[in-house]
Amino acid sequence: MNKAPDYSATYVVLETDSPAGLEGHGLTFTIGRGNEICVAAVKSLAPLVVGLTLEEITANMGEFWRHITTSDSQLRWIGPEKGAIHLATAAVVNAVWDLWAKSQGKPVWKLLTDLSPEDLIRCLDFRFVTDAITPDEALEMLQHHAPTRAMREREMRKHGYPAYTTSAGWLGYSEEKIRQLAREGIAQGWKHFKQKVGGDIEEDIKRARMLREEIGWQRTLMMDANQVWDVDEAIVKMRRLAEFKPWWIEEPTSPDDILGHARIRANIAPIGVATGEHAHNRVMFKQLLQAGAIDFCQLDAARLGGLNEVLIVLLMAAKFGVPVCPHAGGVGLCEYVQHISIFDYIGVSASLENRMLEYVDHLHEHFIEPVAIKNGHYMPPAKPGYSITMHAESLTRFEFPQGVEWKK
Amino acid sequence: MNKAPDYSATYVVLETDSPAGLEGHGLTFTIGRGNEICVAAVKSLAPLVVGLTLEEITANMGEFWRHITTSDSQLRWIGPEKGAIHLATAAVVNAVWDLWAKSQGKPVWKLLTDLSPEDLIRCLDFRFVTDAITPDEALEMLQHHAPTRAMREREMRKHGYPAYTTSAGWLGYSEEKIRQLAREGIAQGWKHFKQKVGGDIEEDIKRARMLREEIGWQRTLMMDANQVWDVDEAIVKMRRLAEFKPWWIEEPTSPDDILGHARIRANIAPIGVATGEHAHNRVMFKQLLQAGAIDFCQLDAARLGGLNEVLIVLLMAAKFGVPVCPHAGGVGLCEYVQHISIFDYIGVSASLENRMLEYVDHLHEHFIEPVAIKNGHYMPPAKPGYSITMHAESLTRFEFPQGVEWKK
Repeated sequence: MNKAPDYSATYVVLETDSPAGLEGHGLTFTIGRGNEICVAAVKSLAPLVVGLTLEEITANMGEFWRHITTSDSQLRWIGPEKGAIHLATAAVVNAVWDLWAKSQGKPVWKLLTDLSPEDLIRCLDFRFVTDAITPDEALEMLQHHAPTRAMREREMRKHGYPAYTTSAGWLGYSEEKIRQLAREGIAQGWKHFKQKVGGDIEEDIKRARMLREEIGWQRTLMMDANQVWDVDEAIVKMRRLAEFKPWWIEEPTSPDDILGHARIRANIAPIGVATGEHAHNRVMFKQLLQAGAIDFCQLDAARLGGLNEVLIVLLMAAKFGVPVCPHAGGVGLCEYVQHISIFDYIGVSASLENRMLEYVDHLHEHFIEPVAIKNGHYMPPAKPGYSITMHAESLTRFEFPQGVEWKK
Repeated sequence: MNKAPDYSATYVVLETDSPAGLEGHGLTFTIGRGNEICVAAVKSLAPLVVGLTLEEITANMGEFWRHITTSDSQLRWIGPEKGAIHLATAAVVNAVWDLWAKSQGKPVWKLLTDLSPEDLIRCLDFRFVTDAITPDEALEMLQHHAPTRAMREREMRKHGYPAYTTSAGWLGYSEEKIRQLAREGIAQGWKHFKQKVGGDIEEDIKRARMLREEIGWQRTLMMDANQVWDVDEAIVKMRRLAEFKPWWIEEPTSPDDILGHARIRANIAPIGVATGEHAHNRVMFKQLLQAGAIDFCQLDAARLGGLNEVLIVLLMAAKFGVPVCPHAGGVGLCEYVQHISIFDYIGVSASLENRMLEYVDHLHEHFIEPVAIKNGHYMPPAKPGYSITMHAESLTRFEFPQGVEWKK
């Protein structure tokens, strides 16, 4: 479905009048054309943010989030809370978290860890999800794990958060290329391999067999259909692929199809169902959880409306006992999601069971503090902020359309 | 939720090289700011349409629709099939239908009526909905009613399609204003009255009582919450309002909340649940129907991805036995939906039971062929096209930002 991506980003800088020259940086990820639409959406949101003080915002982040998503009813109309306007919301809201964390001299995961459960709840807007989780329930969950946060923080600092890579098994690669990538992955110590499926089923089967030959049965094989199947088709195809014992099938059908995912899951167990990179807001995740539609919650840090909404999804997933394995790759998603998963472990789920963070070794060189992988684990970022600040030179070189990279 | 709208439209003109100077016009409706984002999205979609011939498109409209929504995977990413890019799709696709109908010298409803069931099915893309309706089932449904189409066409030409109006009972109106609007509506012969709810519940109750005093118990009262409630809140509030016997509650909660609507419906029967003006694609309607979440399907002609997707929703609603009462008002929505409901009756549902078309007496003067209401019925449009072509003078005067209306 996502053929020929040209990784792009809508990049937001919140300037301040602080003597220290503090800036908040945030981005939303796109795959090329359409980025200009998200840029237009950010410009339309700007009047809701420009002129506020950071103190006004952080005094009640929950109210600020509702202000951004709801107070301009005219902008809300073209969502609501979906599509370009919500992608733009992600960039703006994440830039505010970056700014807040920088002002505190902490990485975002640590800012979250140091917030009391009560203060964290005040950052969240529970509108439309109170039938699944109330602020009081969420508070209780956070309080339950608060006394042991320090222990898990030490563990994260020492060992990091487990990662998996996704470089092998893509559609259109030759047999040699797939075998070679699998061997390289094994040599690098990776234990999880993801195969793209959804083309010709005989080809999918052939590549699955090839991958199992290379990685054996001790390592884990996942499959990813990128939304190409209808519901019944997904069931038929996954039953044929079941012999290769995939751990999960990712995006088997339309990301909007909650009931469809539930039906697929019921019909292909024990293969798990994973989705979320295109689930657009907390209401969709709420229903995926309520309907028992997913085994893995793959939220996207730049598609949900910023960290506030991500935190609500983390809390709901923990309540429903579904592990969160965020979507990453693209531009900056790895940088974002390490904060999310590390805090998920320290403060929300307190579990690493069936949890891993996607990792793609691509485009990290543009970031001031690129992700650091050690022994297949994401090591906690140390610099203040949300790790999304790019080198000034990268921003200049790649700015559309005037950057030198576009003149070539 | 939609306070302070400033009715706007993203207006598309498809020019052709036909000697007759044929043009296809289409629009998507917005409520002000955010329209510029939809305009940007239309510009991004343009390369997918410019250069095609009408004959290429109409030879396989289903393929064309998939081409517009899926062939540019980069643009699809910022949806998929939702938000600004899908609103833009509506404007472009509807402009194609307008062009096709004009080229045939027929209004759109008549073009549809004259297409054979087989040809109509070829206009549709059933991706993601085949678990609810297959092309074969849809064909059979169309064939079933085809022999009697002419009879219903005559009926429509003679009596038109029943309408209801929505001018009374808005939030923020004074008691005198509400009573006066109700009396005016009764004097004009209207039988349905819609009250906005979702503010202070005591105020909602007061206005409901006032409206019942004016309209009595023979006329129909509907309520519209415009998405302000959480699920449990909607149930509590509607139980209090039940004594006024509302026929339906419209948009009780988030438009994305399929399971929430189903739970509300199960808990407030016999009050019906209506939604759809913000349901963004056929996958959402499929689930609303599968989950038994709605009594009335209020699809929006400019939010779904154009007439092709609307037709699929009509077919699914007919299969599930749910009446379609399209959302109208705004700019041009009344002009669009008359074609939809008239064809729904002639070719798809063949029923008028519990069906009415929303009507708002506002902004029709900008259209070459404004809707014609006679005895509370929409009379079938006669001019070729989708009735969405505006007067050149209106387009010039109101074009943002250079039109004279914007210089005032």
